[in-house]
Amino acid sequence: MGVDVKEESLRLHKEKRGTIEVVGTMPLRNSVDLAVAYTPGVVGPCMEIAKDEEKAYEYTIKGKTVAVVTNGTAVLGLGNIGPSAGLPVVEGKALLLKRFANVDAIPICLDSTDPDDIVNTIKNIAPGFGGIHLEDIKAPECFYIEDKLKQELNIPVYHDDQHGTAIAVLAGLYNALKIVKKNINNIKVVINGAGASGIATAKLLILAGVKNIILCDIDGIVCEGDNSLNEPQRQIARVTNRSLEKGSLKDAIKNADVFIGVSAGNVVTGEMIKLMNRDSIVFALANPIPEIMPGEAKKSGARVIATGRSDFPNQINNVLVFPGIFKGALSSRVREICDEMKIAAAKELASLVKKDELNEDYIIPSVFNKNVCDAVARAVMNTAQK
Amino acid sequence: MGVDVKEESLRLHKEKRGTIEVVGTMPLRNSVDLAVAYTPGVVGPCMEIAKDEEKAYEYTIKGKTVAVVTNGTAVLGLGNIGPSAGLPVVEGKALLLKRFANVDAIPICLDSTDPDDIVNTIKNIAPGFGGIHLEDIKAPECFYIEDKLKQELNIPVYHDDQHGTAIAVLAGLYNALKIVKKNINNIKVVINGAGASGIATAKLLILAGVKNIILCDIDGIVCEGDNSLNEPQRQIARVTNRSLEKGSLKDAIKNADVFIGVSAGNVVTGEMIKLMNRDSIVFALANPIPEIMPGEAKKSGARVIATGRSDFPNQINNVLVFPGIFKGALSSRVREICDEMKIAAAKELASLVKKDELNEDYIIPSVFNKNVCDAVARAVMNTAQK
Repeated sequence: MGVDVKEESLRLHKEKRGTIEVVGTMPLRNSVDLAVAYTPGVVGPCMEIAKDEEKAYEYTIKGKTVAVVTNGTAVLGLGNIGPSAGLPVVEGKALLLKRFANVDAIPICLDSTDPDDIVNTIKNIAPGFGGIHLEDIKAPECFYIEDKLKQELNIPVYHDDQHGTAIAVLAGLYNALKIVKKNINNIKVVINGAGASGIATAKLLILAGVKNIILCDIDGIVCEGDNSLNEPQRQIARVTNRSLEKGSLKDAIKNADVFIGVSAGNVVTGEMIKLMNRDSIVFALANPIPEIMPGEAKKSGARVIATGRSDFPNQINNVLVFPGIFKGALSSRVREICDEMKIAAAKELASLVKKDELNEDYIIPSVFNKNVCDAVARAVMNTAQK
Repeated sequence: MGVDVKEESLRLHKEKRGTIEVVGTMPLRNSVDLAVAYTPGVVGPCMEIAKDEEKAYEYTIKGKTVAVVTNGTAVLGLGNIGPSAGLPVVEGKALLLKRFANVDAIPICLDSTDPDDIVNTIKNIAPGFGGIHLEDIKAPECFYIEDKLKQELNIPVYHDDQHGTAIAVLAGLYNALKIVKKNINNIKVVINGAGASGIATAKLLILAGVKNIILCDIDGIVCEGDNSLNEPQRQIARVTNRSLEKGSLKDAIKNADVFIGVSAGNVVTGEMIKLMNRDSIVFALANPIPEIMPGEAKKSGARVIATGRSDFPNQINNVLVFPGIFKGALSSRVREICDEMKIAAAKELASLVKKDELNEDYIIPSVFNKNVCDAVARAVMNTAQK
């Protein structure tokens, strides 16, 4: 399938000249139309907004529009391929936001790798947008950029690589734990990948009640006191791996209840799965090649298995999350996507799988389930009201 | 009409949530569609562009999309009302670009008034766009910003307040001169308004062969050596008003053949028009109130009169120009909108008024004339080929 899909993607991107189009909402048939849509009529909306900036939500695209911003430094599994090469992905995100949430999204590719310059640029372009969706910006810079923008902007800022993954994982975990009848407070979780999604997932799982998390990266277990860690890794190392274990992923995975891979293909073996506790849960989310293929994981004793792929059961994908996040945030004019919203979104997502339908091969709704976007949006809106 | 149009404009902007919408170009019905439009298929376009950045024109929206960028410091007749209040105008420009040129345009409002910061921000967001349309940025900063961006970017940068006005004025002037049978090399032109459009118009008229131009601003005649002038005014003062006249607009207009107002309403009297040479040409372009009403100018001896308004004959409006400029620039992948293109565009525009149709009340085609956009685009493309 891989090659065909890529060929078809090339063909279609070329034919359609990208995945999105800008169209007009107003008629322009004659000079009266022109006077209403443009000058002199447009003086009306301009002056209303000049008097009260909030009116931009009423008279312009701001209230329905987000910017999807990348600098192309961490694109899919491709790494730092630059802003132009990152454009097809942010265009794709814009297509998905429209399709699933009816949110208008504008792809913005930034020719900058300096975090403060990126923050400044996004601040500068913010007036025309109701929200900022950060995408494919590499760690550790992505953490600083998001934090700083959240402090300085009064519109929601959301880094999808972090929070989309974290929320979708937590939703899947809620349901997987029901199947294996384990309590979230008593499980040992190993997360492989200490970048944007790994760290964000660890943070969210801690907030959701997980007490024992071990994070690994390419050099093995992440442990407090390791001088090679970057600042966000140092911070997460203070609240994970409290027994200060050192060693490899293989050491970490021993007696784990849950493995979450947000790393690379084929880095987990069946032998390693066998070291896990019984009724183990394996989320092998690397794309397109999972950390371990589902069949191999099953054979080695895993009870519930999820991947990031649509051609296996239990696809854990950010598409389940970000459209609803922005739909909810724009609808309720939310200033910030807070942690409570993320947990509420995971719970709403999990609840879409009915008790009598829940099984090893169905722990998370399909991205085409019509209720997904509204469930996530509802979580954001209800939490905002509290 | 004024009040009604404003009311209708407020109503329609609210109902439609702004003047533009982002829509998808690709179907997303099932997981195959998702794999083609997004992951893993999107890896194809990403990698092609990573290998050759030019491929962004082939596989993304870049080749059909421009950014319409303002900071809201010189919005219509309203002045500095800020980026949010400037949004309805750049949305309107995006609507017009789509309607007249089928160019996708994205409004960007910049929360910055520092020229270098603006240049840096636009440079940073440039990778996703095939051109930059600058709009409603006040003088003198607009000159510096455009010049700097032209040096640093390899996509066309075009400040509409300057060049749109200059090109439309020159087009109207070519035809008006045919009526009065005067030669462009021998006329005296007075331009009232020494901001973005006044200075750009003076520059273009000089290139088109006008030898005697006097520029005025609110303090009267612009004259070399005046220390109150800003840098762009100092530059234009060196090539206009070579007899170093001083005094008021009334002094300047004496024996002028052409008056071009890009200033404010009601600043010219019938008495002043009477001081002009016979068969005078009066372009009173201030909006919505012209420098002098057409009836008054006619009564005082003006032979050819144009305004910026659609409810009088001879509407000289930027809408005649910018859609074709970007259509041509994107079609031929032009790197810069050079002076030759501007003069060619004015000639093409003027030529749309056939010899046997040309008269005092028809010197410039209607903005709804279906040939306008292509004529301007052709001028850009043909000049690029040379």
